[in-house]
Amino acid sequence: MNVTLHGRTEPFRTVTYDAKNNSVKLIEQRRLPHEFKIVGTNDFRETARAITDMIVRGAGAIGATAAYGLAQGALAFHGGDLKKFSAHVQKVYQTLADARPTAVDPVNAMNDIRRKMTAGETVAEQQALALAAAEEFANVDVKHCEEIGNHGAKLIRNGMRILTHCNAGWLAFVDVGSATAPMYAAQKQGKKFHVFCDETRPRSQGATLTAWELAQQKISHQIIADNAAGHLMQRGEIDLVIVGSDRVLGCTGEVANKIGTYTKAVLASRHRIPFYVAIPCSTIDWKLKRGFDIPIEDRHESEVLGAWGVICNSKLKIQNSKPARRAYVRVANPSSGARNPGFDVTPAELITGIITPVGIFQPKELWKLRYRLGFTA
Amino acid sequence: MNVTLHGRTEPFRTVTYDAKNNSVKLIEQRRLPHEFKIVGTNDFRETARAITDMIVRGAGAIGATAAYGLAQGALAFHGGDLKKFSAHVQKVYQTLADARPTAVDPVNAMNDIRRKMTAGETVAEQQALALAAAEEFANVDVKHCEEIGNHGAKLIRNGMRILTHCNAGWLAFVDVGSATAPMYAAQKQGKKFHVFCDETRPRSQGATLTAWELAQQKISHQIIADNAAGHLMQRGEIDLVIVGSDRVLGCTGEVANKIGTYTKAVLASRHRIPFYVAIPCSTIDWKLKRGFDIPIEDRHESEVLGAWGVICNSKLKIQNSKPARRAYVRVANPSSGARNPGFDVTPAELITGIITPVGIFQPKELWKLRYRLGFTA
Repeated sequence: MNVTLHGRTEPFRTVTYDAKNNSVKLIEQRRLPHEFKIVGTNDFRETARAITDMIVRGAGAIGATAAYGLAQGALAFHGGDLKKFSAHVQKVYQTLADARPTAVDPVNAMNDIRRKMTAGETVAEQQALALAAAEEFANVDVKHCEEIGNHGAKLIRNGMRILTHCNAGWLAFVDVGSATAPMYAAQKQGKKFHVFCDETRPRSQGATLTAWELAQQKISHQIIADNAAGHLMQRGEIDLVIVGSDRVLGCTGEVANKIGTYTKAVLASRHRIPFYVAIPCSTIDWKLKRGFDIPIEDRHESEVLGAWGVICNSKLKIQNSKPARRAYVRVANPSSGARNPGFDVTPAELITGIITPVGIFQPKELWKLRYRLGFTA
Repeated sequence: MNVTLHGRTEPFRTVTYDAKNNSVKLIEQRRLPHEFKIVGTNDFRETARAITDMIVRGAGAIGATAAYGLAQGALAFHGGDLKKFSAHVQKVYQTLADARPTAVDPVNAMNDIRRKMTAGETVAEQQALALAAAEEFANVDVKHCEEIGNHGAKLIRNGMRILTHCNAGWLAFVDVGSATAPMYAAQKQGKKFHVFCDETRPRSQGATLTAWELAQQKISHQIIADNAAGHLMQRGEIDLVIVGSDRVLGCTGEVANKIGTYTKAVLASRHRIPFYVAIPCSTIDWKLKRGFDIPIEDRHESEVLGAWGVICNSKLKIQNSKPARRAYVRVANPSSGARNPGFDVTPAELITGIITPVGIFQPKELWKLRYRLGFTA
């Protein structure tokens, strides 16, 4: 999507590959919204660390990052011994798969790349196929997001007030995004609407990333505390909820997503507000049988105990310094600890529909439609 | 309650009166938990501003502050003209009443003081009665909190995990607190339990004040993001919820409290977790007929767009400086705005019981029991 820098508007993708340096280029998302910066990783280990450290985050973006990371790792291999090459690729695969255990996209993406590269008969052929497959993976990701947008835009009517949680925007994918795709498509169709962005503590991806995206696209929006959505729903000020997901279970329709998603689904259900989850098909996990078995990362307590931001002056305005001076402030009582589950699981009963590139379905239908949705036995 | 400063443990109250300087002394709650400081107000306007600016907050504490503030204002009057004195007192009353429109405690407290002071026949007599009434009001507040604790402690069993929202601890009253009173009483009875403190964005009173209180009292606790309670309830990790309130409607049993309370009540109801509201009887509003009519303050957007804390070093540890260097950091996208409702209203159907100094009641029983609960026609 477009980014306006120093008055010039240019198109960007979240993840790209730099062939000259065998480097994966990423938007440094932890610097956003206060600074826009592209970083490059030197090897697959750095790429894995970029996923773990959340330089890049979001289902599609980490899928494409892992795909490029696998190609990057494969391309770094010197020699012609296919057996040694396979062992090396397996190590690369495992390192990238371990970078974020809750997510299914990196693994799905890398399985795709591996399947395609094994058609090559030499190391060089497999290396070339890996890169081509990673590029194709990224382009398909963009196309799928655009299709999510076309289906989802039908849900948006003029004057609607839409709630979204965390960031499932283009920064979470290669481009366009999932939860935001219907908004971008509806905007193109000339529809007017307003978006409430949940702040999404503890990492505040809604206040930072989603709000930045919507501001760049000139979509009317306001940030709210995670505590406020219930009140706004009660007063009739929210008409529609659209969120993304890190993993949807094909068997049960359960949705794993950023902590707080379950709470918003419970609230939407109580107020009879449609609650949609927008995902590419690669987010569907066809194997796991129960949402309870999805591993929930307990993240570092410092995320809950404080906040990252740029230091402001006495009038609460950002101080004039370039780059903006970022700092971590400890908000909480210094002698207290925190509990910080990173994700939660929303049951199918609370979800109105799953917006996919091939249409909008009820969560309990996914299994029935599995062959259409990319299931492979 | 006790505060440990430089290794010495001393008892403190949140609000006291300093007769020598005709000054209301308050714990500067915005400096907590990083600094413990007592401030004094020079006149009733400063006392009102201390309420508006949240130097002091919480139902009981602002009630007592308004009571002392009314006495302070009355005592500042010079002369013997009763008519002029009454007009002056009316002005003081209105200024203090306007300081926080959502709360009912300051008005109830001041009505009590005014009723008692009018027994005096001269200005001097009325002034003396006002001060005596304010002191009595503060002492009764403490006694009521202790009684809330005695009733509420029966709900707490060994090994329970209790959720609380915002701060309805002793800092929100003159002493002891409402939502925390059962915890302090249960601790005295030797019971072991664990408390999850909702961070309570945007002002983070849970992470700062409640966590500080519990740490001072050595009660096992952890801070959680407001987004996390739903997940913990779903996984069976919360057994009981106790919150405070800014206003309970005697007619309907509806509860106005810090934004996010309604959300926690909806979640608790879904998971069949008992949800209790602890209040002194002065928090009951016998007049208003519908929760929808409770005015909900829209507070400044800067609260949502950033956070106050102390600046930490690169290891996320608080930098060594005395006093700790507080700063406001802007977290959110600089070009985005926010919506910031300060309170919400929870309907009676979601509330298991109201813990009062005279017993635990269902919210719909309040009206029937109104004479026992201090209703005056």
